[in-house]
Amino acid sequence: MIRVAIIGFGKIAADQHLPAVASDPRFELVGVATPAGDPEVGVPWYGDAAELLAAMDGAADAIAICTPPGARYALAHEALRAGFDVLLEKPPATTLGELDALEALARAQGRVLYTAWHSQYAPSVAPAAAVLACSEIAMLRVSWREDVRKWHPGQEWIWDAGGFGVFDTGINALSILSRILPVPLLVRAASLSVPDNRQAPIAATIEFVGTDWQAEFDWRFDAGEEWLIHITTCDGRRVELRDGGARLLVDGVEQPLDADREYPQIYDRFATLIKARACAVDREPLRIAADAFMVARRESVAAFR
Amino acid sequence: MIRVAIIGFGKIAADQHLPAVASDPRFELVGVATPAGDPEVGVPWYGDAAELLAAMDGAADAIAICTPPGARYALAHEALRAGFDVLLEKPPATTLGELDALEALARAQGRVLYTAWHSQYAPSVAPAAAVLACSEIAMLRVSWREDVRKWHPGQEWIWDAGGFGVFDTGINALSILSRILPVPLLVRAASLSVPDNRQAPIAATIEFVGTDWQAEFDWRFDAGEEWLIHITTCDGRRVELRDGGARLLVDGVEQPLDADREYPQIYDRFATLIKARACAVDREPLRIAADAFMVARRESVAAFR
Repeated sequence: MIRVAIIGFGKIAADQHLPAVASDPRFELVGVATPAGDPEVGVPWYGDAAELLAAMDGAADAIAICTPPGARYALAHEALRAGFDVLLEKPPATTLGELDALEALARAQGRVLYTAWHSQYAPSVAPAAAVLACSEIAMLRVSWREDVRKWHPGQEWIWDAGGFGVFDTGINALSILSRILPVPLLVRAASLSVPDNRQAPIAATIEFVGTDWQAEFDWRFDAGEEWLIHITTCDGRRVELRDGGARLLVDGVEQPLDADREYPQIYDRFATLIKARACAVDREPLRIAADAFMVARRESVAAFR
Repeated sequence: MIRVAIIGFGKIAADQHLPAVASDPRFELVGVATPAGDPEVGVPWYGDAAELLAAMDGAADAIAICTPPGARYALAHEALRAGFDVLLEKPPATTLGELDALEALARAQGRVLYTAWHSQYAPSVAPAAAVLACSEIAMLRVSWREDVRKWHPGQEWIWDAGGFGVFDTGINALSILSRILPVPLLVRAASLSVPDNRQAPIAATIEFVGTDWQAEFDWRFDAGEEWLIHITTCDGRRVELRDGGARLLVDGVEQPLDADREYPQIYDRFATLIKARACAVDREPLRIAADAFMVARRESVAAFR
């Protein structure tokens, strides 16, 4: 039995981690830390992460870190040094340097570090990768649009420098692309739309190396959600991942897929890694985001309130 | 004899690469490409890089790429595919993805790829690294200030998105730090001052993970140059690299150093790598820059003309 504690108990922990842990017989939840008050999920609650880590000495094996990204590096560092295996919600850190340092620490300490990019477990990802393997890509279009007021209400940190802005969502698309494309994704140019009164972008376009490869992320979309990846190959195949990867169309034909089990699969993988004492650190989605930020042209757009 | 051709024949090629190649008996210059007209250096000139690469088939072994950074990826890619060994001026590419892709290509083709960060060969670097090995760093201050009108006259590309701005200079300091510090440099926060009419920063401050670790880059300095790294260790040692690494003071005492031979050492290293058929790709300075761009707060400052 793997005894796991969760640090950061917001929406993603409550909606996804909690049921995934509960439904996996290899895991037992043994504690949660959040400053927002006891979520009353039947295990000890700590108002402070350091308190939890101290209390879990000998009482937990692994820590899942679900705080906002800015806090993850320091917490993961502390958890690894204290001897815990660590799962990091996406994005796993604020910088590539932090992620490299955590991986080096985990390996030095013989601990497991696992970057859980949940969209990589969307049901379309593995079949899309199989279709695209060995293909040459002719066209790539990503359209990742949603209403930030619906999906990130009250998340002020997301607008700060280092808060990622629309990349907090768009990085899900990048995490899928880095799994399904047969070649690495190289940023040629990017454009960020940054609200007048904020530091992080509310919209972005990225042009990739490739004749006709582009992504568009936009948080100013209030007609539902559009989470779409559309790829055509040089030999004429058309691959569409819709609804964030929940649906797959090949040459216009809807493919039968397994049910969406992103988080159960994340914990399945975490259990496998812990058994094998292996790290799984995927830095590609963060690398693509960093490259986009480095080369991006910025334009100022209407203030966001 | 290693037959080398130079693509991009601006100031750095004329002032540094040309004499370094001429003074090294293992190298022979066999061609140059630049759209700016024949520099008349006694070897065939090509107005176009593709022309040079075609003409050098069987006539050159290696290519040094000294163009502005935006062009380097495509040229290096072409040169590696054509079977040449490649030296890249700093910064070696515009994105980390480009650099990763070039390294993968070089290894797949059995070609040498070498990222020549010239400041890493400044005479103070190896002795400073020796003093700091195993030390814990208490304080780190970088002050890298110069007059952009003096050092980058007419370089419009440097102000574009992806042109790096003041990081084109500051990355020299980052390249030194990544060699002399006993631990990786992690960006905690950064601030970029971007002229109203430009996309790239004219000044930047970076705060690193560490109690008192900071860097300041500024191109608005017209009282000469200040290229200074100042480090104190927890056991009280004081290490100062001055004049971009040309001078070293330890505990206030000037250290005797070898004469400045940055570019001769670069070609010495390139010859060694070619003989050993080994790549030397250092992505750390670019990684630190990318992290700074990703987390940076931006402020708009006076237009630059």
